[in-house]
Amino acid sequence: MNNSPSLLPPSGEGFLPGLAIDLVIFGFHENQLKILLLEYKNTGLFALPAGFIKNDENLNDAARRALTERTGLHDIYLEQYYVFGDVTRHDPTPLEAIMLGKGYVPSHDHWLLRRFVSVGYYALVDFTQAVPIPDLLSDQCEWHDLNNLPSLMLDHTTMVNKALQTLRDNLDHKLIGTNLLPETFTMGDLQTLYETILGEKLNRTSFQRKMLDLNILERLDKKWTGGAHKAPYLYRFKG
Amino acid sequence: MNNSPSLLPPSGEGFLPGLAIDLVIFGFHENQLKILLLEYKNTGLFALPAGFIKNDENLNDAARRALTERTGLHDIYLEQYYVFGDVTRHDPTPLEAIMLGKGYVPSHDHWLLRRFVSVGYYALVDFTQAVPIPDLLSDQCEWHDLNNLPSLMLDHTTMVNKALQTLRDNLDHKLIGTNLLPETFTMGDLQTLYETILGEKLNRTSFQRKMLDLNILERLDKKWTGGAHKAPYLYRFKG
Repeated sequence: MNNSPSLLPPSGEGFLPGLAIDLVIFGFHENQLKILLLEYKNTGLFALPAGFIKNDENLNDAARRALTERTGLHDIYLEQYYVFGDVTRHDPTPLEAIMLGKGYVPSHDHWLLRRFVSVGYYALVDFTQAVPIPDLLSDQCEWHDLNNLPSLMLDHTTMVNKALQTLRDNLDHKLIGTNLLPETFTMGDLQTLYETILGEKLNRTSFQRKMLDLNILERLDKKWTGGAHKAPYLYRFKG
Repeated sequence: MNNSPSLLPPSGEGFLPGLAIDLVIFGFHENQLKILLLEYKNTGLFALPAGFIKNDENLNDAARRALTERTGLHDIYLEQYYVFGDVTRHDPTPLEAIMLGKGYVPSHDHWLLRRFVSVGYYALVDFTQAVPIPDLLSDQCEWHDLNNLPSLMLDHTTMVNKALQTLRDNLDHKLIGTNLLPETFTMGDLQTLYETILGEKLNRTSFQRKMLDLNILERLDKKWTGGAHKAPYLYRFKG
């Protein structure tokens, strides 16, 4: 991959002006919940993966493209959750430092240093399936434990917190089709996923009752475990 | 009010380029649910109230300003619900017709005729409290019955439908603070509001059980109706 900052478009030509996308990519695997961050070594800064929208590109397609560019993953569930549009989020200092550190001297009215409104998207993936790839200005793209995040650039910590809150609020309706579980799974697998995303232990009996009341699960045969009793039922999401 | 189209800013100077706001303002009163539409008489077109964001203005403040400019109302609950960013929504024809009809001849690259991404907001107000005011290009600003809407410009029908779906999905958490009910109300008042927004009749017993389970209501004294029995309890939303 050619990582040279000289590939940066010198003007914003070809892209919608003043509008960006920021991606909160949650990665789940077994009991862990992580998010994908870019690191800029010359400045010690961390940031969410971002993207711009081409003049002839749909906004949601631009977000999907950015997700694929950073993870190698296709056909991932991705959702708009909030537009960050406060004036106070405009601070050209960190990006200017990053560009200078990469040997790129931007003019003071460089398009990347102007005010941007950013559409926040979140995605939920199995982090073992992704192949993180840095963008033109960053040195590393890596999974970070959600419980131990470094300081993030600009308002990116707010972006992460709001995405997590939205994900938690909508969890009952959002897990279908995320590919975070195998096609068939036990109630225990589902509870582990909930507990990891919610960050708390749940009562087994009431969790099972709530899930069955939601009417989103189809019960299949028992899982063959060798022994005859205590074999858990398998479920899948209704189509 | 000076309604002259000559007040239109000739360039987009002072506003964020390419970004707009569209408002789905739901109006409730007694059993009716309406939305506020602008009418352009010279073209027969109807549209949602819209707004632009000043260079030094927060996005959410621009939405609040647009809401106040069209309704005269302040301190109204307003929520982002979706960003409309498809390329196909760019069609300069209707707006060009509206401007020409108002005696304003735009250049072909006039800023209002370029591609816009629009942040959709919805609000919920008591329509008897609002004083609808047309904008610079429109002739009328009026409440329309949600069940009997005229054809709307561009993708505005999609915007209305998506706002209504979001409102319905979130109703249990969104009514607090909307000022659609007096400070104290009966379970019957609340059920009427739900039924009107959901567009369907609800079972009285299960509605009451669900509302009490949500733990958002505080029960007060019975409503004094003159007769001793069958007086309904009054409730208010917990603070």
